[in-house]
Amino acid sequence: METLSQNRCHGGVQFVFRHESAATGTPMIFSAFVPNHRLGARLPVVWFLSGLTCTHANVTDKGEFRAACAAHGLIFIAPDTSPRGEGVPGDPDGAYDFGLGAGFYVDATQAPYAANYKMWSYITEELPALVAAELPADMTRQSIMGHSMGGHGAITMGLRHPDRYRAISAFAPIVAPSQVPWGEKALEDYLGEDRAAWRAHDAVALIEDGARAEALLVDQGESDQFLDKQLKPDLLQAACEKAGIPLTLRRQPGYDHSYYFVSSFMAAQLDWHAERLKR
Amino acid sequence: METLSQNRCHGGVQFVFRHESAATGTPMIFSAFVPNHRLGARLPVVWFLSGLTCTHANVTDKGEFRAACAAHGLIFIAPDTSPRGEGVPGDPDGAYDFGLGAGFYVDATQAPYAANYKMWSYITEELPALVAAELPADMTRQSIMGHSMGGHGAITMGLRHPDRYRAISAFAPIVAPSQVPWGEKALEDYLGEDRAAWRAHDAVALIEDGARAEALLVDQGESDQFLDKQLKPDLLQAACEKAGIPLTLRRQPGYDHSYYFVSSFMAAQLDWHAERLKR
Repeated sequence: METLSQNRCHGGVQFVFRHESAATGTPMIFSAFVPNHRLGARLPVVWFLSGLTCTHANVTDKGEFRAACAAHGLIFIAPDTSPRGEGVPGDPDGAYDFGLGAGFYVDATQAPYAANYKMWSYITEELPALVAAELPADMTRQSIMGHSMGGHGAITMGLRHPDRYRAISAFAPIVAPSQVPWGEKALEDYLGEDRAAWRAHDAVALIEDGARAEALLVDQGESDQFLDKQLKPDLLQAACEKAGIPLTLRRQPGYDHSYYFVSSFMAAQLDWHAERLKR
Repeated sequence: METLSQNRCHGGVQFVFRHESAATGTPMIFSAFVPNHRLGARLPVVWFLSGLTCTHANVTDKGEFRAACAAHGLIFIAPDTSPRGEGVPGDPDGAYDFGLGAGFYVDATQAPYAANYKMWSYITEELPALVAAELPADMTRQSIMGHSMGGHGAITMGLRHPDRYRAISAFAPIVAPSQVPWGEKALEDYLGEDRAAWRAHDAVALIEDGARAEALLVDQGESDQFLDKQLKPDLLQAACEKAGIPLTLRRQPGYDHSYYFVSSFMAAQLDWHAERLKR
């Protein structure tokens, strides 16, 4: 693991690392904020999964997470959103919503994407092993959050690993990719035409199929330009109600889909995570 | 004044505006955060002057000022650092430390810069008039802060307008431009070879020449790569001691010159401003 940068910030250190990923077959970059801590301490880990077009850098620059992570003593990991580099196929038309910057947190099974687009394994297996080995992390205390496509990733990973992530939250998540244009395009091209295979990567379908979480927290801007067509929080709300999952869905008047929205509620979401990580 | 963007953030609105500047003869862009407030209220204004290579966007993206400004009810204005655009001369060699992105907050008197590089007048006269007219600002309660070259701008403007700015602070400021390479190059090319003309744009010289402030606050990273060659906070400390100006100089171990440093101490500096703006 190579350190690309490290900067003192809010009493801790903001790192950016690069490593060779076996899962994706490419170099991968991620950022990690490690707050000040006493020597030998092991700190809880919050995973932040980013949205379409993003790298680790967007939330690292604009997320306003470090003050809260420093206050609570939380490591904050921000991975990239797809494999990148020479030979990695992107969207055939160069669209922003598939391929590079748009891995959708699945393990692709379809050519030509299956060789590199293994973001599910990368985020849930390979990167946690690296973080456990290289950072002062207490892997018995993890939580996960994400924005938009990354909210989809966070909720699906949280639902499928109920014993691993003690808190699951999202900012403006794609909650039912099987039912919206972004998700239908991505899941078909990564996983194939059989929609049965999509259900393991669709939060609403997972809940319908029996997955459960102790609690879910979602912030959603009411002026989000993608609200009605791509995000559809009502579908998650209905699924949670039917399944008896306590969902706190905070509809935030006037907020859009940007990091101006994410950063406004980051500290409140991290407070909620910290409470659950410290139990 | 044209609104380039407006985004709900931390309960207020982050604006980016463009307007035609008479001072610089160019269009100028600045950002303004206006916190939530009751209709008809007028809010104190904090000016943030940015450093070399920056536009309004750097602090707007990375400065982590909005939570504190929302809590204190402060408008936060981030201007650009130079005129830009067709016909505006930059550094002849394309260097980063002069010309575009490097106006040094002076009114240039030397060709070819005198036509556009009027950042002193722009920041102290033209832009305040625009802010007073267009935003819910209480211009009797202003304060000023800045980073690096912008710290130089903030302290010199504060010293020369003791009745206007109720608080003056800086992150890693250039305190004595006449005595360091960045400053010598800029002041000579903007103001000419006569060093007497430089003293009105040099914080240490201004204090030596009798300028006073009620108090100054400076945060300075001890691992700042520009500390010894360009910043030299000891010179400010000595001048303040001699003049009886209460300077709080906080040397921050491990911090560099980046926005990771600025954002770490932004809330604390804004607390200090708020205290003085609310008296």
